This record gives sequence, structure tokens and C-alpha cells, in this order.
Amino acid sequence: MSSVSQQVVLRHPLQGVPQANDFEVIETPLPALANRHLRIRHHYIALDPWQRSAIAGRHSPDQQPLGQGALPPAEVIGEVCESRHPQFAVGATVRLMGGWQTCSDSDGSGVRQLDAAATSPLSAYLGVLGMPGLTAWASIVRLAEVAAGQTVLVSAAHGPVGSMVGQLAQHFGARAVGIAGSAEKCRQVTDTLGFAACVNYKDPEYKKQLRSVLPTGADVYHDNVGGQMLIDACGLMREYGTVILCGLISQYNDPALAVDLPVALPIMKRLTMKGLVVYDHQEAEEEFLATAEPLIASGEVQYLEDVAHGIEACGAHFAKLMRGDNAGKTLVRI
Amino acid sequence: MSSVSQQVVLRHPLQGVPQANDFEVIETPLPALANRHLRIRHHYIALDPWQRSAIAGRHSPDQQPLGQGALPPAEVIGEVCESRHPQFAVGATVRLMGGWQTCSDSDGSGVRQLDAAATSPLSAYLGVLGMPGLTAWASIVRLAEVAAGQTVLVSAAHGPVGSMVGQLAQHFGARAVGIAGSAEKCRQVTDTLGFAACVNYKDPEYKKQLRSVLPTGADVYHDNVGGQMLIDACGLMREYGTVILCGLISQYNDPALAVDLPVALPIMKRLTMKGLVVYDHQEAEEEFLATAEPLIASGEVQYLEDVAHGIEACGAHFAKLMRGDNAGKTLVRI
Repeated sequence: MSSVSQQVVLRHPLQGVPQANDFEVIETPLPALANRHLRIRHHYIALDPWQRSAIAGRHSPDQQPLGQGALPPAEVIGEVCESRHPQFAVGATVRLMGGWQTCSDSDGSGVRQLDAAATSPLSAYLGVLGMPGLTAWASIVRLAEVAAGQTVLVSAAHGPVGSMVGQLAQHFGARAVGIAGSAEKCRQVTDTLGFAACVNYKDPEYKKQLRSVLPTGADVYHDNVGGQMLIDACGLMREYGTVILCGLISQYNDPALAVDLPVALPIMKRLTMKGLVVYDHQEAEEEFLATAEPLIASGEVQYLEDVAHGIEACGAHFAKLMRGDNAGKTLVRI
Repeated sequence: MSSVSQQVVLRHPLQGVPQANDFEVIETPLPALANRHLRIRHHYIALDPWQRSAIAGRHSPDQQPLGQGALPPAEVIGEVCESRHPQFAVGATVRLMGGWQTCSDSDGSGVRQLDAAATSPLSAYLGVLGMPGLTAWASIVRLAEVAAGQTVLVSAAHGPVGSMVGQLAQHFGARAVGIAGSAEKCRQVTDTLGFAACVNYKDPEYKKQLRSVLPTGADVYHDNVGGQMLIDACGLMREYGTVILCGLISQYNDPALAVDLPVALPIMKRLTMKGLVVYDHQEAEEEFLATAEPLIASGEVQYLEDVAHGIEACGAHFAKLMRGDNAGKTLVRI
């Protein structure tokens, strides 16, 4: 039974690309557990690009930037180690917004108990079977309504959202083309994840390569990046195509890097562009898992993880993610 | 039977906001009419913002800017004065892309014969019953699928597209709010066109006024303008609203004035944005006219026109339009 939580907090307000020493580990004593609350010992902490935006106070309206000493938010998976809550028993495995720490208390709101009979590894429920996977499901099934025979382009194809976007698209009979940030990432996107093609945006010939793997354009573009990559992708869309606007990783580190969208592009191409926020699609989780869990179990859907160990790894591992040097879904195992 | 066409042509490539003396009138002899062609004497020339974009070579892909001596394109209504075409008899009233001139020859492609029994004035078939009206129909009925009880915001509300967007929206039970460029235009938008409200974007209190006439935001925004006005409007949208991207008059005179769209806006608001090009919706013209002609005839739908007289008026009248000083659908009567 923990009476202390180790937390990774901001040493100072964050500027630009994060570095390991922007963060420090502190110990916070936990008070006696309140009535109708539960205490969770964290096993996995998910590090995601949206956390950079949250630290900057831009993840949702009416937020403020996080200051010195603040705890970055994160989705975690853990085990109930103490409970005064009628719905959660000690020993249950749960997923919640627990933050960059080893232990947290909760009143149960937003806490989801994971099925004890689940066949997939726990960590997958923070990645391809978690919020990133549900994001991909909402994009492919609900917003873009991808059909067999279509071509789906996706940026950050090596990350958990992008890798699931492409694999779900191909499961439904479409052709997936990825964009990623290194030749090695691209190799994994095609060889391990099974995309039809993947182009490295850091290659000087990148645009030419994209045109060559999209000879008749794309029907759907799922955008995790924004900025110039979105502009380039719009230029490769077929007329009447659909663009899902889902992430802006190109500007999370520094909003001054934002490159806005010339509106003539979607007009010329008669595009439909839809903003996607995964929190709107929680009620689709059951149908998503009913399809996705068997795909993971059978090996039809593969996933990549980049796991660091120990709470003190959070800062450096997050910095690696935000430099684009991660090798899959970025997790800290405690 | 004309043997000469008076044309208004460019004196030089166009820079910035057009002025009357950027154009000059010339006389061009017409050769003997070719077989399977018809000759049309123009009665009305429509002057539209898209022509500024076409003169700059930006109206559609693979265009070049128009040079010295070039004839700007325009939709016209006229009368067949000579015919060697089996489908068009002398005396028929037709609408076609005839350009800024008094007379033109055509092989019949893209020429539409107007119904001799039409009850509305001819000029309306270049405005609220023509391409601008069909644009509004495509927006409200096909792309935005406006429903009763919704609030529809529209910029350039005093122009033929905007005025029809708002009036059709109200015909289908929605509430129309306009944006226009002077207090007098706004007065006409509410008093003559019957919009629920209209705000003058040149008023320093414009944003505050918009918020006050849209206390719970807009479900649909039809954008004829682009740039900062689009950004402001996105900020006033309800979540899950629809933005129809239809025009970019803010940058037609000078692309250096373009203000692009921060993509965070449609993500935060979960907006759907759709590019609209009216040429895609020609086959909806019959259903559009079946609804709109009776609305004009009954007076439920009103329209504003700014008519100049004589071919030599084209340049100055177009310049007036592109300064925003026009008083409705801009036409030259010959």
C-alpha cells in the first residue's frame, strides 16, 4: 500500500522542444484514502504528443500553461491497491488519467476497468487498443467512412494512431500509404505494419516519392501533423476527398512554427475536412474493441512500442518522443 | 446582324485592385459565322469577383494570368442573332460564357437556352436565379444540408450568393445572420432581404456585435471571403458545425493579402469544412429553379442589382465591385 507517489514535475515552464532536465522527480506523500475513492499503483504511463500541447495550455479551451512544479497529465494503466469505492475492488486493472507518477487517487470518474479476460498485453490498451486506436477507428469508420478500394494516406504512420489508421484501412479493403520521419521507421511501417508504401518526409525527394506511390492521389488523408505536411497532402488529394484533421505535432513544441492552411486548396479540390477529437467517440469503444482485439490476437494488426523503465525515465523519454526519435508507442514501465 | 464585337480588354496585366483605366474598349470584326455555330448579341454582362481571380490566372488549375489585350471572361445573357446551329434558333434567349463584349460566336457548348415562359426578369438569371443562386442552393441544400431551427451565418451577405444563401436558409426554417461591408448594405440585408441580423465588418465593434447576434454560435457558416473573416467566423461556430468554403474575395485582388487558416480551429470545434465549386452542381439547376422561381415571383425572395449601362462601363463597374462599393449583383446592360 503506497503512502508516497513519485512524481515527475516541471522544473520550470516549458519552452520549445522538451529536454530531460526540464523535469525533476519529487516524492509526494499521499493522505489517507478518502471515502468513495480508490488508489491506483501505476504500471504503464503513456507519453503522447498531446501532453506537450497540454503543458503549453493549448490542449483544450480555457487551459493555462503548466508552471513550475506542475504534474503533466497522462493516461496510465495500473492496479487498484486500495479501495473505498464500491465499484472497484483491490487487484482490479484500470485505465485512467493518472499523470506522470507512480500512484494516484481517484473518485472513480473516468476510470475504466479492463476486462480480466483480455488476451492482449496490458500496454496495448494504452496504444493500438487504447485512445490512439479508438482515434484511428473514429477516423476510418466514423468520419472518413473508408471503403474498399480507396487509398488512405496517413502521417506519423509509425505512431500508434497512424499505424492503426493504416492497418484498419487495409483491414477494410483500402490501400494504406504512410509518411514517417526516417528510413528505418518507413521500413517498419511497410514490413511490420504491412502498409502498401511509406515515404520518409526528411528525404529531399519526399514529394516526388509521394507522387510516385500515389499516382492517382489519395481519397482520404488522416493528418496527425498539420503545417506544411498538411498542405503537401492536400495537393495530393483526389477531388472530393476527405481530410481528417486530428493532430498538429508540427507545432506542439512551438506555436511559432505553425504553418496555416491556404483555403484555396480545399476549395480547388472540393475537399471535406473534419476535425477529430477522440473524447467525442468514447461510446464507440465497445464496437472498436470487438473488431480490434481479434485482429491483435490473430496478428493481423501489429504494433510497435518504445518502452523505458522507471518513473525517472519520463522526462528523457518524452523528450525523445517530441524530437521524433521514438520507435513506436512511447511508454514508461514502472 | 453584328459584324463587329466591341470588347473591353486589358490594357496591361492587372495588379492589385482594378481601376477603370486598366481596361480599354476595342472593336473586333467578326468573321462569317462558322458551320454549326451561333452568334449571340449580349444584353447583360455579369461582373463577378471570380473574374478577378481568372484575370490573375488563379481561378482554376493550369491557368495563366491574362496579358495585355486579353478579354476577361464573364457569364452573359443575350439573344441569338444568327444561327448555323441546329439547336438554337434566331431570337432565342441564351446564357453562356461570353466575356466582356457586345457579341460572341459559340459552337453551342455550355450555352443554355432560357425558358421563353420564364416570369422573372432576364437579369435575375445571372444573379439569384443564375450561377450565384445555384451556388447558394448547392451550399444550403447539398453540402450544409441546413435544417429548420439552425442558425446560418454568411459573409458578403449583400452579394447575389450571400443574399440567396440567407434567404434560402430562412425559407427552410433556419435563422440567417449576414456580414456585409457598410451600414447601408446591412440595412438592406435585414430590411429588404429579411435576414434576422447583419453586421458591418468595418465597424470597430464588429466582433462584439457578431457575438451578440449569435449568442449561442452558428451551425453553418457560408464563407465567400476567406482570411481573417473566416478565422473570426470559425471562432463563432458551434461544435460540430459546418463551414462551406466558397470564395476568397479577401485575396482576389492581391494574393499577398491571403491570411491562411490555423488548423487548430476546426479541430477544437470539430468542424466539417467543405470546398464548394458551383460547376459541380449544374445538374441541380432544375430542382433549384423549381423552388427559386416561385419564391422570386411571389416576392418571398428579394434581390439587389447594381446595373451600369453600355459596354464601356465594364472596367469602372468591375473596379467598383472589387472595391466593395457595389450595391448588389453587378451587371452591365448593353
